[in-house]
Amino acid sequence: MQARWRYTGCMLGTTYDSQVCSAARALEWVGERWTLLIVRDALFAGATRFSDFHKGLGIATNVLTSRLDGLVQAGIMERRGYSQNPELYEYLLTDKGRELAPVLVALTEWGDRWATPDGPPVLYTHTPCGSEISQQINCPTCGEVHDLSEVGVRPGPGMPADRAARMNDGLNR
Amino acid sequence: MQARWRYTGCMLGTTYDSQVCSAARALEWVGERWTLLIVRDALFAGATRFSDFHKGLGIATNVLTSRLDGLVQAGIMERRGYSQNPELYEYLLTDKGRELAPVLVALTEWGDRWATPDGPPVLYTHTPCGSEISQQINCPTCGEVHDLSEVGVRPGPGMPADRAARMNDGLNR
Repeated sequence: MQARWRYTGCMLGTTYDSQVCSAARALEWVGERWTLLIVRDALFAGATRFSDFHKGLGIATNVLTSRLDGLVQAGIMERRGYSQNPELYEYLLTDKGRELAPVLVALTEWGDRWATPDGPPVLYTHTPCGSEISQQINCPTCGEVHDLSEVGVRPGPGMPADRAARMNDGLNR
Repeated sequence: MQARWRYTGCMLGTTYDSQVCSAARALEWVGERWTLLIVRDALFAGATRFSDFHKGLGIATNVLTSRLDGLVQAGIMERRGYSQNPELYEYLLTDKGRELAPVLVALTEWGDRWATPDGPPVLYTHTPCGSEISQQINCPTCGEVHDLSEVGVRPGPGMPADRAARMNDGLNR
């Protein structure tokens, strides 16, 4: 668990090696705004080509190139040729990338609540039926958890024993 | 909806003004790794004082100062004096900050799945009963949505009509 992180690509540096936390690890891969917005456009706007992302995001081409390369290196997207002459590629989400959808839904729900005085600009829907979906935290014993102050943490199987003991003592997980 | 964003604090710049998307807006406030990790330690590790965050994150003091100031400016934390001589402050999450918990849970679940070969280091629990909680996407018509490819988008009430039309045409939401 304290093995060094192997990914040393062109996204953000890996300064959290010592942190035993999946949120911190996730942020090593996607803790940069453009990265998640690229994934958003791939997930929900059908973007696959460089020009799609460029048009959708208004991002500088060198930054976009770097972020797409980083997403490919991270296994979040894969690059696939769709033309040989000229040589052209499209960028497709992998399962690892598609599973970022709940992160985007959670960010959107927070943004809807705290940063959109005119109401949600975009609604997430269940495409087979068209209903508006929502995200919730569920307890297998008590059902939906409405009071977020009731969400706590405890060490899991991937936590080294010494850190688990410290975590149980309080701070510094 | 296209009014300029007023927050011009010391977190990341606001280059997404033109993007009508709550996820993009959310990332203007929390689209930086340390920011979410500070919120994480406040939410789940009981961190309130500068020294708590510094100890928990191993972050440079100037960066930590800047991030805490940004969180206060963003209304995600509030600074409260707890000693007058010497003058000392603690940093407490506001409701806006506490409601970032689902974002952290979503990031953690993704990290658990894709970046922790030894199993989840930390489990989120429902503190009143101790059960492990999980996050799910729910459709009011069909129940839990297991297949993330069934999550789509459509324009909401906060989307200007011209953009809604373009969005319905396909790309570039």
